[in-house]
Amino acid sequence: METFKEYEYPGPIYPVNPKYEGEEIQGIKVYGSISSLPDDIPIDLGIIAVPAKITPQIVEELGQKGVLFAHIFSSGYSELGEEGNLLEQQLLEKAKKSHIRILGPNCMGIYNPKGRIGFTHRLPLVSGPVAFVSQSGGNAHRHAFAGIVNGYNFSKIISLGNQIDLDLVDFLNYFRSDPDTKVISMYVENLKRGGNEFVQLLKETTKEKPVIIWKGGKLEAGHNAVKSHTGGLAGNIKLWKSMARQTGVILVNNFKELTEMIKTCLIYKMPKNLGTAIITGGGGPAVELTDECEAYGLKVPRITVKAQKKINEFIPQVNSNLSNPLEFGANGGHVNMIKVMKILDKEPHISSIMITNNPEWYYSAKLNMEEVVKSFANTITPDSNKNIISIYNSSRARKETIDLINEFYSKTRENGIIVYDSAQAAARSIYRLWSYGNYLKNRGYKIKTI
Amino acid sequence: METFKEYEYPGPIYPVNPKYEGEEIQGIKVYGSISSLPDDIPIDLGIIAVPAKITPQIVEELGQKGVLFAHIFSSGYSELGEEGNLLEQQLLEKAKKSHIRILGPNCMGIYNPKGRIGFTHRLPLVSGPVAFVSQSGGNAHRHAFAGIVNGYNFSKIISLGNQIDLDLVDFLNYFRSDPDTKVISMYVENLKRGGNEFVQLLKETTKEKPVIIWKGGKLEAGHNAVKSHTGGLAGNIKLWKSMARQTGVILVNNFKELTEMIKTCLIYKMPKNLGTAIITGGGGPAVELTDECEAYGLKVPRITVKAQKKINEFIPQVNSNLSNPLEFGANGGHVNMIKVMKILDKEPHISSIMITNNPEWYYSAKLNMEEVVKSFANTITPDSNKNIISIYNSSRARKETIDLINEFYSKTRENGIIVYDSAQAAARSIYRLWSYGNYLKNRGYKIKTI
Repeated sequence: METFKEYEYPGPIYPVNPKYEGEEIQGIKVYGSISSLPDDIPIDLGIIAVPAKITPQIVEELGQKGVLFAHIFSSGYSELGEEGNLLEQQLLEKAKKSHIRILGPNCMGIYNPKGRIGFTHRLPLVSGPVAFVSQSGGNAHRHAFAGIVNGYNFSKIISLGNQIDLDLVDFLNYFRSDPDTKVISMYVENLKRGGNEFVQLLKETTKEKPVIIWKGGKLEAGHNAVKSHTGGLAGNIKLWKSMARQTGVILVNNFKELTEMIKTCLIYKMPKNLGTAIITGGGGPAVELTDECEAYGLKVPRITVKAQKKINEFIPQVNSNLSNPLEFGANGGHVNMIKVMKILDKEPHISSIMITNNPEWYYSAKLNMEEVVKSFANTITPDSNKNIISIYNSSRARKETIDLINEFYSKTRENGIIVYDSAQAAARSIYRLWSYGNYLKNRGYKIKTI
Repeated sequence: METFKEYEYPGPIYPVNPKYEGEEIQGIKVYGSISSLPDDIPIDLGIIAVPAKITPQIVEELGQKGVLFAHIFSSGYSELGEEGNLLEQQLLEKAKKSHIRILGPNCMGIYNPKGRIGFTHRLPLVSGPVAFVSQSGGNAHRHAFAGIVNGYNFSKIISLGNQIDLDLVDFLNYFRSDPDTKVISMYVENLKRGGNEFVQLLKETTKEKPVIIWKGGKLEAGHNAVKSHTGGLAGNIKLWKSMARQTGVILVNNFKELTEMIKTCLIYKMPKNLGTAIITGGGGPAVELTDECEAYGLKVPRITVKAQKKINEFIPQVNSNLSNPLEFGANGGHVNMIKVMKILDKEPHISSIMITNNPEWYYSAKLNMEEVVKSFANTITPDSNKNIISIYNSSRARKETIDLINEFYSKTRENGIIVYDSAQAAARSIYRLWSYGNYLKNRGYKIKTI
């Protein structure tokens, strides 16, 4: 009730509770029963938040009123075992008889900024290109807010719960043709119907837009956790990996990887190859970045002798590495970096240019951050199709510099550069994006820009 | 010169530079040559920062003056190729003839807070239990400051550089019997002498104190990066892994894992087994934490029926999981968590209790953070030998809460609890600590508390 008010939902809302009949909640009249609701406007959605046992009866009553959809918030079903399974069957029978489609039970429901519906307070009302379908209300909630700090907004977020009726496949089907959705992301614990339909639909969908799946419940204890959470059988992770390979799905391991992958799909051009040039200060960090890139599938090939010679025109060899990883010791200022990036832009076997930068340094060097970031971004010509990757870890920000860091995140993003907190994070995201591009290319599908 | 002043080095310092002979630097008289230095006090260390070509001559002059140790800061040796190799040979010949031991070249030197020597400004002057030997000046520098945010201090940090004389083995030998050092950590790119001596020494050392090695230069491009950085041949990472298994060395993959592992060794008791109990809010996060624990080798076994029954006395089953991972939905407040942790303290197959907490929540709930953290820590009885692990990611701190977060880090640390930024980070650290304990146990060595 509070969130409908907060988001200024434009239609009528009818609270129903026999205990408060005739009183007001949030200034809105409370009805004592579903049957007593007015008949003048058809009701789109019933939100059910009563003890599990009486939910079948409520669904029946909604059906009699002509309501077509119900979101069941209540928990206490198959996630508790045998008795809960029976309750779900009853619920489904009632729903079928009453021609009601069910979202849930045991779920948070819908967040739709355009439609002014949300499952918690203070969600952004700006619509964006990302859809998220989640078999966890907690993860739906978390992601809604993580979107803000990661710089993207949602078309819709759906918390699925136990999926006794409307399921993952239904929503995948919906988002496939939803014009507001450019990237589909999912948190999945288990499938509720045969895998074939899901696989077919994924194949059709990945042709059009990237589908990113975070599979929860991977090994033994993870399976138990899923059973207790949404009553599902989690299924072998190997099967999911092979499914991803066959369908072009981008599989990720956890929440952090999910948000990183979404950003990557939204901002970066499809890399033509795995070649990565690394520019950093200091030999140790250069070795670390190289190790992390290689560990996650990227290549760090030597740049051409021609390019090395060009760099050597303004950077001496002593205390430098001019072949890749590139590091210039005391000559590593941003003016030289920009010159080097322009040279790298011409290297055909390089698709990603990885740089380390620190917003605190811009500040102490009294540089205009926006100008510097822009001049980095401008080193790339449109037809070279390269991506610039920035590595910076802000996990121990100080009070004095936090505004600076936030400015850094937004300026880089505006200029098509993502800041990852580690080379690891960047490398696995870029590798996955490349794999998806490769999947499309091998099947002769067109690579679309988001 | 500036850092000697800053750290109030207690002995005399003699700047030598023919260009400034007779003038003053930092208020100290400059000498025109080494031979003209006073003979009244023996000189402990020569720090050489001149072009590489003339360093052999300087070493000879230092030898004539009776100086026994030299740190060569200059670079431009084997990291540049053949010509540099020759220069290193010359340097070594001069050093041997002059009975001088060399640290470097191509290195940052020594940080010793007790001895008041440091390689850069604003290093903490507090001595602590961690030694770090680094084949990268950049990583030595980074670690010196990372110690502050991670809550530990150093006995000494050594930046090794090209190791033409004093090498990893020498310093390992030194730190093995250094009473100020409780944990030895290293960043290694390559070995300069036969591996057998190193392996033997490691076996002797790990009996006494944990040795944590971060191996840089793991795959092909990483090897090239090492070659350019310190002129070394990086060696196969498989060999290093097998060496670690044989010697009890704790091998880590990158800088972040290094700092996590050091904290883990300093703060936690040796886990008796891999059993981990997870307490969190929400089914989705419970699945994620379980997946991450299992992916990095920990076990998440069901707790005993007896313990489940005890928990069920005050937490209902609906919207909860009482078996492990434990999650209590709306009943997950800290008072219930403390009760549950006391029950888990009696479970013999559990060694680690993983909780998620958020300092912002303490604040908004108007709780005294110190009291809450203390009461968490007090759930563990001394003889149960369990560790409490906290998971919280502060990477997007807000200005208003940054003090709160820092307080949280220090209060948890004071009470023997480490806050990791992910279950992944916690799981891999605890698994590695357990493996080290297992190595010691299998060989009948005593497990010492730090």
